[in-house]
Amino acid sequence: MSEEVVDPSHPRYQSLMMRKRISEAGVKGMLADSALIAHGRGEAFDYLLGEQTIPSALEATREVAARLVAAKKPVLSLNGNAIALAAREFLTIASQLGCPIEINIFYRTPQRMGALLAHLKLLNSDLGLDVEILGGIPDAKIPGLEGPRAACQKDGILEADAILVPLEDGDRCEALVAMGKDVLVIDLNPLSRSARRGTVAVVDEVSRVATNLIQLIPEKPEITNWDNDKALQSALDHIVGDMSDKFES
Amino acid sequence: MSEEVVDPSHPRYQSLMMRKRISEAGVKGMLADSALIAHGRGEAFDYLLGEQTIPSALEATREVAARLVAAKKPVLSLNGNAIALAAREFLTIASQLGCPIEINIFYRTPQRMGALLAHLKLLNSDLGLDVEILGGIPDAKIPGLEGPRAACQKDGILEADAILVPLEDGDRCEALVAMGKDVLVIDLNPLSRSARRGTVAVVDEVSRVATNLIQLIPEKPEITNWDNDKALQSALDHIVGDMSDKFES
Repeated sequence: MSEEVVDPSHPRYQSLMMRKRISEAGVKGMLADSALIAHGRGEAFDYLLGEQTIPSALEATREVAARLVAAKKPVLSLNGNAIALAAREFLTIASQLGCPIEINIFYRTPQRMGALLAHLKLLNSDLGLDVEILGGIPDAKIPGLEGPRAACQKDGILEADAILVPLEDGDRCEALVAMGKDVLVIDLNPLSRSARRGTVAVVDEVSRVATNLIQLIPEKPEITNWDNDKALQSALDHIVGDMSDKFES
Repeated sequence: MSEEVVDPSHPRYQSLMMRKRISEAGVKGMLADSALIAHGRGEAFDYLLGEQTIPSALEATREVAARLVAAKKPVLSLNGNAIALAAREFLTIASQLGCPIEINIFYRTPQRMGALLAHLKLLNSDLGLDVEILGGIPDAKIPGLEGPRAACQKDGILEADAILVPLEDGDRCEALVAMGKDVLVIDLNPLSRSARRGTVAVVDEVSRVATNLIQLIPEKPEITNWDNDKALQSALDHIVGDMSDKFES
């Protein structure tokens, strides 16, 4: 895809642009192969949602904004795909919140970490921001996880009270919940373990969520008594509503 | 993923093995980047189907077997993902039918065609088969398509009366239907244009379908008056049935 020019009049322009960003990040060495496959899984669920922010997802995004604003030590935990898809937006959000970003990748190699750090630091300076970027030199472990997947930083994920985890692995999501944190998930699959186990799960595409958060954070919304299951069922109902009797008419 | 060993006791072993095959084919230069993303989309739909052959898919597979057996000039049109996922199985099927395989890729480069041809020819000889592999030197065009996507061979796709197209692009599928062929689609997305426009669409994972075809072809099943829409709705109903009231209990 990366060789192709995306036509802005294409009905699926946004989705194709995101695919292009993922392909380009792959070429830059920012991603594991499995990242492209994971992006494809996300595309399928976004396609079923109609590639739009559904009402329950916007409510969930407002709840995430409320909890990030109210947190004492929030952090944005970003993996390769989240950085490929919405690095500018997440830097803006971190700047609004005055919190760090921690790069946190599943298949950790020095090359990939280096490429991601370089990409974020360049954008940080391009945008005239001064967001702290953690993750390069882990000095702590997430309890209950083994190997490089447990690696984190004390000033970031370890001590955070609220953590935004776009596209997070299920095991890590559960380990973070077990630490007692507010775990704020962005995941297009309403049936994923991350979506089900998170404190608040936004079933929406990551760049749309990030753009919405930039609008919502300055409004300082109030935290509610969030019912995550209800929001997930609402996302499933949206998908189902589009599928029943599709071929009967 | 390709560095990782897949544990046979993992509940999603088959799916992880297919992911491994795709990653390995990528490393061998057999695939475009978009192939990994497409595989991920397939994974998501397979996940929604429960990673199993549902009854309507098995019926559709039987219908495909019937039409391939009855055809005067059948051909298997394989792209990079189909070859990565089930090359051995498709060689076996072509041998059962005494028909050629035509390699037919969307993003055609000489390198990628060379890698795919080499892979199939090596397996052909490993399996002691003598299946004719077309696609390397296209000498005809599919009417209604432009650019390298139209390229095909006279002895293969152009003159075939029945064509098996696993994971086919929607435009090409429609162009083949317009040529009056029996277009036999394998596609995990029951809403895709290929699934909707094909003569018979099997909503199932490509290696499972290929394995089932190997069993069904020797039975020489009878062609029926196939209702493709009914089979697609049945696949959607299966997905929907699993989603309603998921979080209510």
